[in-house]
Amino acid sequence: MKIAIINGPNLNLLGRREPSIYGNQSFEDYLLSLRPFFPEVEIDYYQSNVEGELINKIHDVGFSYDGIVLNAGGYSHTSVAIRDAVASVKTPTIEVHISNIYAREEFRHHSLLSPVCRAVVCGMGMEGYRYAVMSFLQESVSDN
Amino acid sequence: MKIAIINGPNLNLLGRREPSIYGNQSFEDYLLSLRPFFPEVEIDYYQSNVEGELINKIHDVGFSYDGIVLNAGGYSHTSVAIRDAVASVKTPTIEVHISNIYAREEFRHHSLLSPVCRAVVCGMGMEGYRYAVMSFLQESVSDN
Amino acid sequence: MKIAIINGPNLNLLGRREPSIYGNQSFEDYLLSLRPFFPEVEIDYYQSNVEGELINKIHDVGFSYDGIVLNAGGYSHTSVAIRDAVASVKTPTIEVHISNIYAREEFRHHSLLSPVCRAVVCGMGMEGYRYAVMSFLQESVSDN
Amino acid sequence: MKIAIINGPNLNLLGRREPSIYGNQSFEDYLLSLRPFFPEVEIDYYQSNVEGELINKIHDVGFSYDGIVLNAGGYSHTSVAIRDAVASVKTPTIEVHISNIYAREEFRHHSLLSPVCRAVVCGMGMEGYRYAVMSFLQESVSDN
Amino acid sequence: MKIAIINGPNLNLLGRREPSIYGNQSFEDYLLSLRPFFPEVEIDYYQSNVEGELINKIHDVGFSYDGIVLNAGGYSHTSVAIRDAVASVKTPTIEVHISNIYAREEFRHHSLLSPVCRAVVCGMGMEGYRYAVMSFLQESVSDN
Amino acid sequence: MKIAIINGPNLNLLGRREPSIYGNQSFEDYLLSLRPFFPEVEIDYYQSNVEGELINKIHDVGFSYDGIVLNAGGYSHTSVAIRDAVASVKTPTIEVHISNIYAREEFRHHSLLSPVCRAVVCGMGMEGYRYAVMSFLQESVSDN
Amino acid sequence: MKIAIINGPNLNLLGRREPSIYGNQSFEDYLLSLRPFFPEVEIDYYQSNVEGELINKIHDVGFSYDGIVLNAGGYSHTSVAIRDAVASVKTPTIEVHISNIYAREEFRHHSLLSPVCRAVVCGMGMEGYRYAVMSFLQESVSDN
Amino acid sequence: MKIAIINGPNLNLLGRREPSIYGNQSFEDYLLSLRPFFPEVEIDYYQSNVEGELINKIHDVGFSYDGIVLNAGGYSHTSVAIRDAVASVKTPTIEVHISNIYAREEFRHHSLLSPVCRAVVCGMGMEGYRYAVMSFLQESVSDN
Amino acid sequence: MKIAIINGPNLNLLGRREPSIYGNQSFEDYLLSLRPFFPEVEIDYYQSNVEGELINKIHDVGFSYDGIVLNAGGYSHTSVAIRDAVASVKTPTIEVHISNIYAREEFRHHSLLSPVCRAVVCGMGMEGYRYAVMSFLQESVSDN
Amino acid sequence: MKIAIINGPNLNLLGRREPSIYGNQSFEDYLLSLRPFFPEVEIDYYQSNVEGELINKIHDVGFSYDGIVLNAGGYSHTSVAIRDAVASVKTPTIEVHISNIYAREEFRHHSLLSPVCRAVVCGMGMEGYRYAVMSFLQESVSDN
Amino acid sequence: MKIAIINGPNLNLLGRREPSIYGNQSFEDYLLSLRPFFPEVEIDYYQSNVEGELINKIHDVGFSYDGIVLNAGGYSHTSVAIRDAVASVKTPTIEVHISNIYAREEFRHHSLLSPVCRAVVCGMGMEGYRYAVMSFLQESVSDN
Amino acid sequence: MKIAIINGPNLNLLGRREPSIYGNQSFEDYLLSLRPFFPEVEIDYYQSNVEGELINKIHDVGFSYDGIVLNAGGYSHTSVAIRDAVASVKTPTIEVHISNIYAREEFRHHSLLSPVCRAVVCGMGMEGYRYAVMSFLQESVSDN
Repeated sequence: MKIAIINGPNLNLLGRREPSIYGNQSFEDYLLSLRPFFPEVEIDYYQSNVEGELINKIHDVGFSYDGIVLNAGGYSHTSVAIRDAVASVKTPTIEVHISNIYAREEFRHHSLLSPVCRAVVCGMGMEGYRYAVMSFLQESVSDN
Repeated sequence: MKIAIINGPNLNLLGRREPSIYGNQSFEDYLLSLRPFFPEVEIDYYQSNVEGELINKIHDVGFSYDGIVLNAGGYSHTSVAIRDAVASVKTPTIEVHISNIYAREEFRHHSLLSPVCRAVVCGMGMEGYRYAVMSFLQESVSDN
Repeated sequence: MKIAIINGPNLNLLGRREPSIYGNQSFEDYLLSLRPFFPEVEIDYYQSNVEGELINKIHDVGFSYDGIVLNAGGYSHTSVAIRDAVASVKTPTIEVHISNIYAREEFRHHSLLSPVCRAVVCGMGMEGYRYAVMSFLQESVSDN
Repeated sequence: MKIAIINGPNLNLLGRREPSIYGNQSFEDYLLSLRPFFPEVEIDYYQSNVEGELINKIHDVGFSYDGIVLNAGGYSHTSVAIRDAVASVKTPTIEVHISNIYAREEFRHHSLLSPVCRAVVCGMGMEGYRYAVMSFLQESVSDN
Repeated sequence: MKIAIINGPNLNLLGRREPSIYGNQSFEDYLLSLRPFFPEVEIDYYQSNVEGELINKIHDVGFSYDGIVLNAGGYSHTSVAIRDAVASVKTPTIEVHISNIYAREEFRHHSLLSPVCRAVVCGMGMEGYRYAVMSFLQESVSDN
Repeated sequence: MKIAIINGPNLNLLGRREPSIYGNQSFEDYLLSLRPFFPEVEIDYYQSNVEGELINKIHDVGFSYDGIVLNAGGYSHTSVAIRDAVASVKTPTIEVHISNIYAREEFRHHSLLSPVCRAVVCGMGMEGYRYAVMSFLQESVSDN
Repeated sequence: MKIAIINGPNLNLLGRREPSIYGNQSFEDYLLSLRPFFPEVEIDYYQSNVEGELINKIHDVGFSYDGIVLNAGGYSHTSVAIRDAVASVKTPTIEVHISNIYAREEFRHHSLLSPVCRAVVCGMGMEGYRYAVMSFLQESVSDN
Repeated sequence: MKIAIINGPNLNLLGRREPSIYGNQSFEDYLLSLRPFFPEVEIDYYQSNVEGELINKIHDVGFSYDGIVLNAGGYSHTSVAIRDAVASVKTPTIEVHISNIYAREEFRHHSLLSPVCRAVVCGMGMEGYRYAVMSFLQESVSDN
Repeated sequence: MKIAIINGPNLNLLGRREPSIYGNQSFEDYLLSLRPFFPEVEIDYYQSNVEGELINKIHDVGFSYDGIVLNAGGYSHTSVAIRDAVASVKTPTIEVHISNIYAREEFRHHSLLSPVCRAVVCGMGMEGYRYAVMSFLQESVSDN
Repeated sequence: MKIAIINGPNLNLLGRREPSIYGNQSFEDYLLSLRPFFPEVEIDYYQSNVEGELINKIHDVGFSYDGIVLNAGGYSHTSVAIRDAVASVKTPTIEVHISNIYAREEFRHHSLLSPVCRAVVCGMGMEGYRYAVMSFLQESVSDN
Repeated sequence: MKIAIINGPNLNLLGRREPSIYGNQSFEDYLLSLRPFFPEVEIDYYQSNVEGELINKIHDVGFSYDGIVLNAGGYSHTSVAIRDAVASVKTPTIEVHISNIYAREEFRHHSLLSPVCRAVVCGMGMEGYRYAVMSFLQESVSDN
Repeated sequence: MKIAIINGPNLNLLGRREPSIYGNQSFEDYLLSLRPFFPEVEIDYYQSNVEGELINKIHDVGFSYDGIVLNAGGYSHTSVAIRDAVASVKTPTIEVHISNIYAREEFRHHSLLSPVCRAVVCGMGMEGYRYAVMSFLQESVSDN
């Protein structure tokens, strides 16, 4: 099973940026702890601050991978183009946000991506990525 | 550790209601499969169609339990009173929706409860409840 | 043929409440005059001021009755939960309002229930209930 | 007793237009089945696609008839002028829609005519016209 | 000097319609009293309930007359087409309303025609037409 | 003189809930200090978290008591049904909020009940109930 | 007969301010030409840039004069206090604007004063004041 | 192949009306230059300023022609009735506007007709009609 | 203890203005009856129709008085400047309205001042001022 | 003559993405069929998923080419920056959409680019690009 | 060169009011430090809490001074009348706010004055006034 | 002291693009004149049309520089991602716009960046950059 985790703008700063909201761990450190949970899953990781490069990545993995875990950061609230990319590919996507976006500024309450994603997890910190991978695994099991 | 799962209106129909959206399993059946995952957790289950009884239940458990997993159904979008109950008690709450509410009618895109909950999971089917319990457990571990 | 008439909040006051709008007849009196029109129909009547009990009633009758005539009163404009109940059951519902709600305050112009009901009658006084029952009968005839 | 049934734009296509919504019967055929129900009522029928001609007709009948049954079709949602006509005449009007307009596109949910009509019936198919006529008859009876 | 007075829908009912708002005088009677004030002006009068016929009339007079006094009634609030007609012709238009539309229902507070008219008079009863004609005369004098 | 004080959802938690906003006193304790101020008034107290039971109570007292002091908590902002109950009975109602609702979240700034209440008091803490009772007394005096 | 003409902010600049919109004549000059038209009317003129002083003036004349001609300038669109003053006094008011406010910026399209004035004239230049005085005269005649 | 070109209000003024926006050519002149491009197409032309007559024409051609090229002018932005006519008939419609309506006043940016038309062309001047006919031809070719 | 009562625009007309809403008593008369209730309180009274003078007064008393009772009349709904004044001074303010503003026109339902005041009383007639003074006294007592 | 065709995000997937909406042909294939129609035109083609690269391209061609045919995909609805690019260069732009964006989700109904483009074509499939090139050619002819 | 600095409501409290937002310096003190920077400029200073007096001042200086530096405080967000004053005079105006108004309450994000001012500076503390004067000087230099 | 000036989309066209709004000077030319004013400041300049590259640059300088002067052009109005970048780094940012954005199209009146910037300058032409640098210098001085 192949899963792509795709992180959007400013998530490269995790561990340095607003630790009261996002914690002290970098995403690379978190990945080290995540992979052993899923020995049977090939987890691909990608981060970019460029909207179009996120689209390129979604295109790259979107016809062959089994799942995309997408945290598009600030683009979640503004990007019709990423929404179209998610809707255009065959691989299903689960949207993850580290913080509870609904408890923050009003413009973060609406994600353009949610309607074309299979599921949404937010406010569970880094662990949200783990539950998203689990959900893809579970689906794959129950399909058999 | 003590967790309360509280389900709101129409969720007593699970397994009978719109199976294309909600699946064929009743919540009682799901609970049977859920509990063995968490032998160390006391899971209390409650369902009511009456808004005020949900508030009563939140009051009952909200000063002694370690977590509330709340699917308030249609009340999620309209009930300031349940929101106040969640905010009034000490026990943290995680909001769960079985379907992806952001992919349905517009009036389901906004939950009054989300801003006072710790986290939100939706679109992961029944398994959303499991991830919510896991998240409470994980928090409790990382607090030590 | 079995029809349930379900009345929501404040309709127990009919005959006592704002007679210039709602008339002087109690609903029980009206029922006495209604039943003889439909000797072949079993008409069940229920009233509650509690939103959740209306949902319970809709669940109770909603998988075995042939029609629900629903006047949800003030809940018509605010209750996603009752809307979900109406949409969750198999029995079709016709919405009735005694007064012409579109000629009253703006917040009464929009009913959350109308989109999931088969039909809407308002402003015909108590007789609206009769036309709703007739409509269920007519449908049943034309189905044969 | 004299009742005018006035149909607005596109209703001349009944039986030919979108049969899944409007059925297969032309209005002329329906009238043949309607009149025998009310031998004591003189039922006048008029249809036009021209907004101003509908106004002319309302003026013509509006000071001498006992009731107007009006289905203004698409003009219901946009015509202040027809609303003014209905409000200007002495004959009361009941608004009828064949389909449940509240279950269709959002711009059909609001009728400018409803606040100046006595009652509204929608979603009961052609039979809505019959209930409207019945309601005028009933009123006339209870006035005596 | 040639002036056209053009009245829109329901204004043929003046004297019969809602006398508390519009008074008891028919427009024809008013015209009899108006003309002697302006012996040097050729006053043309036209009324129609049909939006398109009002447009036709505006086209007819709009390249040769010195002024149009327009009371488009209910079309004032909804008709882009009449607005376009007013803007398309060379003759300037003054908008008149008999009642004070700003003191009535909210949907009457906004006229699509006002921005393309030279001036607006409302709430002065029938005499508003006289002031409109005076204003055209005055302009014509001050142009010399 | 008979006055009913009716408290809505979460007000049973007074003294336990968010003391920085609502203080440390339970409502029962406050009642003990309130009654001696009004020896000539029979003060009835009722609290429920259930919307429909609040309506039932309003019906019960609303045709025989001299005044209702109503703090409907979170239902103030969402309940057309309670509004209808207040408007349906003969006893006048004064709305009380312990905190200044206009200084809190935006969705608390609008109360559906205020337009059908005689008066509104908010932000005066528990003492708001006392001023409401005083106001009923004063009215009763000035009526003589 | 006594009429007060009251001009609001920036109208003291008439003749100096944006002549393409407001013309080259000062209001004092215009008054010289206006008074001879109405030898039987005592015309009082007042201008202030201070909202509260306009209110003071309305109070001063509002219980003894026969009419107020009010051009409240920019306050027309923002002042509830002037609206209350107009509604509080007994003398009727006619609202005048020199330019056609509906053809200018959107925030000028709505006047808070119009609903409490008897009539509105705009876009007729200075002559609008004359028609307003004429209208008061005419009313006074037709009252006899 | 049979194509109907239907023009709405004020388009009879083409060549006379606002030439800076619409050019100097009358539509009749344009038709003379258009027809030779499509010798195999029977092009029917109709213009009316009356909304209902446009509906009549759409009904007339809408069950037998191969395509309708519709420029409904100002009705595009306000007419639910024409929208219903377009949706009711079998012939597909392409919407044409001579000017770029999105670069003009805001109320012209939204066409009620666009969602029920096959395609939209605007801002290409008269030639927009030619591209619309070409598009019908092309479709017809690619269907074979 | 020193309390300032500050009244805004049109409140100088109390007793003369719309007695059905505001009663027949002038504020000066009311003050005569109010002062004996609070022999220990120095009550300062000020009224102005000028927004800026109200601000001046708030500045004058706002650093030395114990409480401001403010009825800003129509400025309550429009004045950011008075709001800033209330927020800028140290003395707390209680907002009073004689009538129930929430039962009147929609533009009166929102007060810009309420969020920066300690409490709000409306609909209790003149007596609202007394309860406001009582509340300041009570606070002062409970602070000891 | 030199024309640049610029395609935005996800249009590189044409032929693979949602064929029911966009068809089975890749854009490269379409270009092969397009060029022979315009032997005298140099057609430059560019596609990118990166908003800023589209801007770079518009800058590159925007001072020397004769026309830009732009399908900015999802950026059409969100990009002020591309709008500014289009408005900043000298070359005129025609906006093309393959599908009828007005018949899809509401957020696709508004293009930020349309007001600064010369013309808009949508819903004509790939052929929309051809009509855009034709339109540039035609303009160029009529300029001579 | 002559520059007028005009400060609006509550700015007389600078140094006393909310020092965390506005600092501890009075404006008079700041002026002492400002003038030496511009020995060649005559700087006139005026402050008032009265909207109309600010208008008077703008009129006084607006036909002879070289620049107005205007901080209209709370009136910035509500005063059409001051906007009209700014637009009516010949002297250009630069708008200054001491704090960053866009980082405060939403109703402070929109200034009615900005569109008619030459430039806007906010959030730079008192120094914003200096930059505004510099800008007028710079313009005057570059005009030569 | 180190300051980064970061310019967003289309600002590379300065001197070529709409000179009536933006002037004839390229930014590189302006920099030549700017640097001598601040010999003690290291001024770093960067421009990109790519949103994500602007974010990358903000990250690069945002933990070591003393100030960022940011003109994000069209992205100012749409980019939550750049806003997050500004809020995520430690270096404070001042927002600059060359033209007065509040005097242009409505969609330019709201900047998503302003609430997280320290200050905003607009409409002062190129010199706005200089005042921003001055402000950082001044702050740095007053911190000592």
